[in-house]
Amino acid sequence: MIQIALLGAGRIGKIHGRNAARHPRARLVSVSDAHLPSAEALAAETGAAIRPIEEAIAAPDVDAVLICTPTTTHADLIEKAARAGKAVFCEKPVDLSSARIRACLDVVGKTGRPLMIGFNRRFDPNFADLKRRIGEGAIGEIELLTVISRDPAPPPISYIETSGGLFRDMMIHDLDLARFLLGEDPVEVHAVASALVDPAIGRAGDVDTAAVLLKTASGRIAQISNSRRATYGYDQRIEVHGSKGMIRAHNVPRTTVEVATQAGFLADPVQDFFLERYAEAYRLEMTAFLDAIAAGTMPSPSGEDGLKAQILADAATESAQMGQTVRV
Amino acid sequence: MIQIALLGAGRIGKIHGRNAARHPRARLVSVSDAHLPSAEALAAETGAAIRPIEEAIAAPDVDAVLICTPTTTHADLIEKAARAGKAVFCEKPVDLSSARIRACLDVVGKTGRPLMIGFNRRFDPNFADLKRRIGEGAIGEIELLTVISRDPAPPPISYIETSGGLFRDMMIHDLDLARFLLGEDPVEVHAVASALVDPAIGRAGDVDTAAVLLKTASGRIAQISNSRRATYGYDQRIEVHGSKGMIRAHNVPRTTVEVATQAGFLADPVQDFFLERYAEAYRLEMTAFLDAIAAGTMPSPSGEDGLKAQILADAATESAQMGQTVRV
Amino acid sequence: MIQIALLGAGRIGKIHGRNAARHPRARLVSVSDAHLPSAEALAAETGAAIRPIEEAIAAPDVDAVLICTPTTTHADLIEKAARAGKAVFCEKPVDLSSARIRACLDVVGKTGRPLMIGFNRRFDPNFADLKRRIGEGAIGEIELLTVISRDPAPPPISYIETSGGLFRDMMIHDLDLARFLLGEDPVEVHAVASALVDPAIGRAGDVDTAAVLLKTASGRIAQISNSRRATYGYDQRIEVHGSKGMIRAHNVPRTTVEVATQAGFLADPVQDFFLERYAEAYRLEMTAFLDAIAAGTMPSPSGEDGLKAQILADAATESAQMGQTVRV
Amino acid sequence: MIQIALLGAGRIGKIHGRNAARHPRARLVSVSDAHLPSAEALAAETGAAIRPIEEAIAAPDVDAVLICTPTTTHADLIEKAARAGKAVFCEKPVDLSSARIRACLDVVGKTGRPLMIGFNRRFDPNFADLKRRIGEGAIGEIELLTVISRDPAPPPISYIETSGGLFRDMMIHDLDLARFLLGEDPVEVHAVASALVDPAIGRAGDVDTAAVLLKTASGRIAQISNSRRATYGYDQRIEVHGSKGMIRAHNVPRTTVEVATQAGFLADPVQDFFLERYAEAYRLEMTAFLDAIAAGTMPSPSGEDGLKAQILADAATESAQMGQTVRV
Repeated sequence: MIQIALLGAGRIGKIHGRNAARHPRARLVSVSDAHLPSAEALAAETGAAIRPIEEAIAAPDVDAVLICTPTTTHADLIEKAARAGKAVFCEKPVDLSSARIRACLDVVGKTGRPLMIGFNRRFDPNFADLKRRIGEGAIGEIELLTVISRDPAPPPISYIETSGGLFRDMMIHDLDLARFLLGEDPVEVHAVASALVDPAIGRAGDVDTAAVLLKTASGRIAQISNSRRATYGYDQRIEVHGSKGMIRAHNVPRTTVEVATQAGFLADPVQDFFLERYAEAYRLEMTAFLDAIAAGTMPSPSGEDGLKAQILADAATESAQMGQTVRV
Repeated sequence: MIQIALLGAGRIGKIHGRNAARHPRARLVSVSDAHLPSAEALAAETGAAIRPIEEAIAAPDVDAVLICTPTTTHADLIEKAARAGKAVFCEKPVDLSSARIRACLDVVGKTGRPLMIGFNRRFDPNFADLKRRIGEGAIGEIELLTVISRDPAPPPISYIETSGGLFRDMMIHDLDLARFLLGEDPVEVHAVASALVDPAIGRAGDVDTAAVLLKTASGRIAQISNSRRATYGYDQRIEVHGSKGMIRAHNVPRTTVEVATQAGFLADPVQDFFLERYAEAYRLEMTAFLDAIAAGTMPSPSGEDGLKAQILADAATESAQMGQTVRV
Repeated sequence: MIQIALLGAGRIGKIHGRNAARHPRARLVSVSDAHLPSAEALAAETGAAIRPIEEAIAAPDVDAVLICTPTTTHADLIEKAARAGKAVFCEKPVDLSSARIRACLDVVGKTGRPLMIGFNRRFDPNFADLKRRIGEGAIGEIELLTVISRDPAPPPISYIETSGGLFRDMMIHDLDLARFLLGEDPVEVHAVASALVDPAIGRAGDVDTAAVLLKTASGRIAQISNSRRATYGYDQRIEVHGSKGMIRAHNVPRTTVEVATQAGFLADPVQDFFLERYAEAYRLEMTAFLDAIAAGTMPSPSGEDGLKAQILADAATESAQMGQTVRV
Repeated sequence: MIQIALLGAGRIGKIHGRNAARHPRARLVSVSDAHLPSAEALAAETGAAIRPIEEAIAAPDVDAVLICTPTTTHADLIEKAARAGKAVFCEKPVDLSSARIRACLDVVGKTGRPLMIGFNRRFDPNFADLKRRIGEGAIGEIELLTVISRDPAPPPISYIETSGGLFRDMMIHDLDLARFLLGEDPVEVHAVASALVDPAIGRAGDVDTAAVLLKTASGRIAQISNSRRATYGYDQRIEVHGSKGMIRAHNVPRTTVEVATQAGFLADPVQDFFLERYAEAYRLEMTAFLDAIAAGTMPSPSGEDGLKAQILADAATESAQMGQTVRV
């Protein structure tokens, strides 16, 4: 049994904590959260102890740490946990600064401890199946990738203000998916962005509608588009065009029910929101982390993946702000 | 907490046992199975005790009994459990003889204990949503119902031989759905059936391909078709035509991935088989049973629902064999 | 050039007349219609002459006659035209009485002239492609056929009163399709029917909602359902289940546009009505007729096909009225 | 009747010539083509005369001229026809040089004669319906537009060499659609492009895979992607995301037939190629031209539309070559 300490029992912490607690290979030893009622509720539900963060990281009965605290604490906690000899799973992003991420990865590298970054979409069964089939040659060589990601509704302005901006907060998932699927790193980034959904987002210095063009060294092209609002649900699609064909993963509707009337054929909105849409992805992500620990291998996506997605997000932010192409 | 005894730890018993064990409102107290390794495996997994059936039914720490044993034992066990004052959930069918079902329901009726029959499809989120929307008037008055149900592959001949025949074993689910959706009992049954999938099924005196036409007193029409084999997965569809429109529940594909090549656009086969397709339905079915017990109300589908579906299955069997219409 | 005389310049006559006039292999010589303005309009448009029916049939410059007059005149006109040595295309049905059809086919048979009956759906590119692929083995052996046919709205009661009833007027198309696709004649007919759409249809002695079960000698099963009203357009679907798979032809939407909002994904209603849905089928049907004349072969569907569909429609009418199975 | 002269009887000339000849409001007076057999075949089919180009343009019995000759001749012929007092329809592009287009439009402007450019996709019933619904407010304010356009197979290298490059030859249609749908002119163009389909295209100095990001003054974003090869047919899709919802036009499949087997559900490839996919669009385009002439109004898309699309194509070409953003 792998003994787990959960740091942060908020929305995403609960997901990872429960998945770890239910996993046949793992035991959730402790829960830490500055907001005690959150920690208590999850501890009661899972049978875990409540411990202060520092104690949880240091505890000899802990093999692995799940970091689900606010972003600003990630890099420090990763370093502490790795130095304490723990395997580390950290929610994205490692940090809003690429320099800080680099420094953190250096520290982790010296410890040799495994570090996995929570790019959950790689584990979505639909996306994972799409990736698998591309690998099997279903569409030949990849030429053109399209990723569409639209949230149902924008987060509060208070969240926007400390988020690092749409590219680092939201599109980073799609940038990681692009790297994951292209099998190659982009070298050229063009981005455009606007605040069209809510002018308050613009006043907060951020954007809510954005698109990016990426080009790899071998000439593969990726286009990503994001919106902070989609009235029809959480829109999450991938389409890959290749030399032998095209493959895509459609959205997941709430039900398969369709009603036909004079107005036409009405199918359900798509699943809303990420806790529902990616519930299975979170379970499979935790399994991948635990499997890697058990096997003594390095988990994927790695800290390096976290860094590279961040560099692309930085480049996209700069490109959109400057209105010019950025090379990476 | 509702204390549960599971009788029968085979394929479907495991599903119900686990769902009961995981339910926040219930505790799985005991598991009984003549095949001891099955009972032991499930007991180990859930923390339940192993008890002989008679003891489990009589146990004072048991509030409710889940009957998942072979069909021939259902009626007897229902009677014993009801007489012992337990709430009873029984897998369909109650019995292959309508007369035996009637007698059993009389016994249960005298005890006043709740009895629920496992017509799981009523709890499928897609079908339940379709039913709800019909109730809200989405298609006006129901006029014409189509139910399509096709298994991925036929069961072994040994199973066929004791199954009571396709209408009682397989179509009974669709007959129950037809009653559930029509909101009215059919009074006229026309059936045709053939052994086209496997001649061995014909030699065993059964059929593998069948269709039924039902008509209610008010003139509503239902058509059901079944096949014991569908190469593309477990085909489960409903379509209801009404005065204001049409509503249907499509199949559930394995993934949302689609591949386009010279051959066209290839989408995934449908989920296969019932343990996967109806996993959520089984969970919701158990919740409905536990909710009814907690509320002190009679659960639905009731023993009477079990009887009426069986009467329709008998009528369809007779109609197909005689080549003539049967009134019920 | 094949010289054509059109008898009847109503709604369907105009279609066939125009298709003949535009066909590179044919010339529309004359138009006949008791309602002179109809004849004049079509003659002006196509450059054809206007002739009385008797004269048109007798005219030596006419090779083939298209009969699009009221049903009651079909059999007489077919006989006259065949005796006059013309090739004959006649809209369905030949007559509402199977006895009269038989007598008519005897007359035609003696003349040796080609007779084609207007079962237009066989020529729909989607249905024809489905049929072709079944022939190529796409689904193995046919086991179970489902035909769904729903009109957008019922015809006037005055039409209903002389139509011969839903089975002979509307379902006859589906019965012909069933024969066409099954590759075998049904021997057993079960039908149920109701007047649910409009009670006035019931008072006129007809039904508006109906379903039929057919069984062939080899055990293949077909189910057909009809409604005189579908709020979402002209619903025309076929699904065939076979030993190796299932094939279906979906409806044709008005456009491919889809709108997603909070309510869900709204696709267009289906094409409405037969003049639009089967425009291409009518063109291909005329081509098939002209090709057969040019090749000196007997066209298909033949008069015999017209008779056999009528016999099934008679049987369905009787089955629905008597509430019992009819053998044919 | 509007008297029409067709200049150029090649592939696209035949389409426009036939549509004009069949139009109730028009008469095809003459056909001109340096390749005499082409002119003769179309003249024979339509009853038009054959005339040398200069004579056709000067002829007093001609009201309007359809220019379907090679691109290099377009601007000259437009000027001559307008000076001769004719209404002019010209296939896109007016010229490969924006300067030449400007000069040409000046000449036409002084004559006051109507000029329409053949951006056929605006007339596709699906795209036109999408545009109409956006205008009716179906999705609120436009925020993000996605246009996907992929040809079934690349043209011959000889064509590529004189085509002006992918952006001016192929993407120009999508750039026009973007302007048409956005209701606003882009001010910023980012493009990336590669020769991935065929290295010979790269050696010819062109690309075969490309994507563009456009931004308008108000912040609306458009992304367009092109490939010269799609194994599954002629891929033509539009998706528009707005404040109240999303609207899209799907591809048009060859038939509505779908086959389900162990491999999954296989639907038809999409219609292939533009002569089939846009047959109805070409008819409606000719009708729009004739309607404008009859009404004495200026047709749309105008010469100005032709110029603006060309300017965007130039900008995209430059952006892709330089690897930097271009402002227009």
